[in-house]
Amino acid sequence: MSTQTEFTSFIPPQRTLMGPGPSDVSPRVLEALGRPTIGHLDPEFIRLMDETKQLLQYAFQTQNPLTMPISAPGSAGMEACFVNLLEPGDTAIVCVNGVFGTRMIENVERCGANAIRVDDEWGKPVDPQKVEDALKANPTAKVLAFVHAETSTGVRSDAEAIAKLGKAHNCLVIADTVTALGGIELKIDEWGIDAAYSGTQKCLSCVPGISPVTFSQEAVESIHARKTKVQSWFLDKNLVMGYWGGGAKRAYHHTAPVNAMYALHESLVMLKQEGLENAFARHQSMHNQLKLGLEELGIQFVVEESYRLPQLNSVWIPEGLDDATIRKQLLEDFNLEIGAGLGNFAGKVWRIGLMGYSAKPENVEKCISALKAVIG
Amino acid sequence: MSTQTEFTSFIPPQRTLMGPGPSDVSPRVLEALGRPTIGHLDPEFIRLMDETKQLLQYAFQTQNPLTMPISAPGSAGMEACFVNLLEPGDTAIVCVNGVFGTRMIENVERCGANAIRVDDEWGKPVDPQKVEDALKANPTAKVLAFVHAETSTGVRSDAEAIAKLGKAHNCLVIADTVTALGGIELKIDEWGIDAAYSGTQKCLSCVPGISPVTFSQEAVESIHARKTKVQSWFLDKNLVMGYWGGGAKRAYHHTAPVNAMYALHESLVMLKQEGLENAFARHQSMHNQLKLGLEELGIQFVVEESYRLPQLNSVWIPEGLDDATIRKQLLEDFNLEIGAGLGNFAGKVWRIGLMGYSAKPENVEKCISALKAVIG
Repeated sequence: MSTQTEFTSFIPPQRTLMGPGPSDVSPRVLEALGRPTIGHLDPEFIRLMDETKQLLQYAFQTQNPLTMPISAPGSAGMEACFVNLLEPGDTAIVCVNGVFGTRMIENVERCGANAIRVDDEWGKPVDPQKVEDALKANPTAKVLAFVHAETSTGVRSDAEAIAKLGKAHNCLVIADTVTALGGIELKIDEWGIDAAYSGTQKCLSCVPGISPVTFSQEAVESIHARKTKVQSWFLDKNLVMGYWGGGAKRAYHHTAPVNAMYALHESLVMLKQEGLENAFARHQSMHNQLKLGLEELGIQFVVEESYRLPQLNSVWIPEGLDDATIRKQLLEDFNLEIGAGLGNFAGKVWRIGLMGYSAKPENVEKCISALKAVIG
Repeated sequence: MSTQTEFTSFIPPQRTLMGPGPSDVSPRVLEALGRPTIGHLDPEFIRLMDETKQLLQYAFQTQNPLTMPISAPGSAGMEACFVNLLEPGDTAIVCVNGVFGTRMIENVERCGANAIRVDDEWGKPVDPQKVEDALKANPTAKVLAFVHAETSTGVRSDAEAIAKLGKAHNCLVIADTVTALGGIELKIDEWGIDAAYSGTQKCLSCVPGISPVTFSQEAVESIHARKTKVQSWFLDKNLVMGYWGGGAKRAYHHTAPVNAMYALHESLVMLKQEGLENAFARHQSMHNQLKLGLEELGIQFVVEESYRLPQLNSVWIPEGLDDATIRKQLLEDFNLEIGAGLGNFAGKVWRIGLMGYSAKPENVEKCISALKAVIG
């Protein structure tokens, strides 16, 4: 069957991960990941689940009881938000200023719902005025969705302003916080976000594969009030709650990725020990340091400073340089990964991540000196 | 936000896992899991993906190019098969002889398709005659689905006979091979199975969280010929193929769970090194040993020997014993996990797993002596 007959263990190279994620994973998290597997209904695992929930509530700044990790990557977390909150025929207003807004449209349409698209230029934040206009023009819209930190462009949108507009117009507000969580200020309850999903492999610096989500009481009530079943059995919150919900008795839904949960727990313990405010300050300070180095190399940012994400730096590839060649050199000669541009930005933009454990002085120095060596 | 203020690293107890999964994970696999994370588009990771595909082709005994791990647990693998192969209005014949057949019905209905249910008693295999009758009575059925190894009851159905019936009636055949893969004979190509999904935490003895799947060319053509989009963006094979498909250029779809893939690869390398036939023989021989021990204790099997799964042993809880109390004692006093009954079998049945790395003499001895101490 196989073209190859001998297979041996895979020993990965030791990279420095400064792309759009995965970011560097700390040895503490890798160590937790490799601990012995226990059962997904073991009382000790239930205790881990309870702590993880509390730690995620801290990270999301929410008291939502329905705060938990989905056993699949961020795109499944996105899908969980849409399939649970939308039914066929519903209307959702979706802000699009990059790849992930576009993906939201796909999700809305695959739910049999209508997507009202509010476009902004790539590299620019969502314009609250356009959002307000769309809300006024579509008074029956059930959902307003937007991306807080657009991983494809490095733009931060004003999540607080957008969420408040959504609530003022009686919408359930869905926010993509994949790259935001743990890197920049995010206040689910205070801002009025009803459903948010994130990823483990960005500012939490955990291994990829899990998507933390949180749902407000209003969102939960809307799920309970559905006329149709959630189209995904795997992502149906009504069912998942039987396993992740409070209480000692947990109903089996699916087998949780036990070891990935050890790793997520450890990364959240690290975040709690550092403190959210300190983590945000560290991302900002590493960004400032990177900026100085890039400016010296004459490299320009795609995104204006006032709405630039410190943890994801999109820069224009200098004239005359071949994208793939340079990235290959960085990887092969320096074991350094930086990100390519996505979609409209492919071949024109690099994305330099400073997320979680990658947001440290050694990484900034390494990146600048490697770039200097390769393009200088 | 949190009720607890101090959080520390989670150190799991060292259990012996003899439930329905997760099974014991070998130190080799745990070591692979904890290796440094690299990017999901790193050339070294692409090489790992290619090898994993070949190793899965070996495990599934197939040449299907579309053979790959889904980045989520077995229930998402199940969903991937149904949402890709069914469209609203299609008909699927589903064999139900346990929990997972029932879950298939849920999947069919959530696709907007019609489920024709073929029931067999719990603890009995799927009856090929009933399947043939259903196929004859529903000549427009598009899909025939069944569970090869029912994890809820410990029954093996005659996958070859059922699949051949499905093909003779022009159906796409979907098989649940979650507990089968690596534990008992499974020949995707020879038997004519068009789509199969499995799990990593059973006879592969890898950590839970990933679902290997395989799709035949006929299944792939049927996906290409769809009139409607696959309702799940995350599980849409048309999109996933851009990342997992052959060729050097991989399109980003979602961020793969990189470390879980290291672990899966290692568990498959171990399976290849042992050889499928040897692995099957080991499961059978451990089952025989367990059977002797259980018989001495007067414990009866639920399933008749001719269609009993060696890797998942359902036994009647002896009269007068309290299910939960005994399992708690086994866990607390012996660090031994065995499985509870599911659904109709809750409180009446224990499920003793001998899967993958758990299928070894030490485990059988430990299980028998612990049971003897607790109930003897």
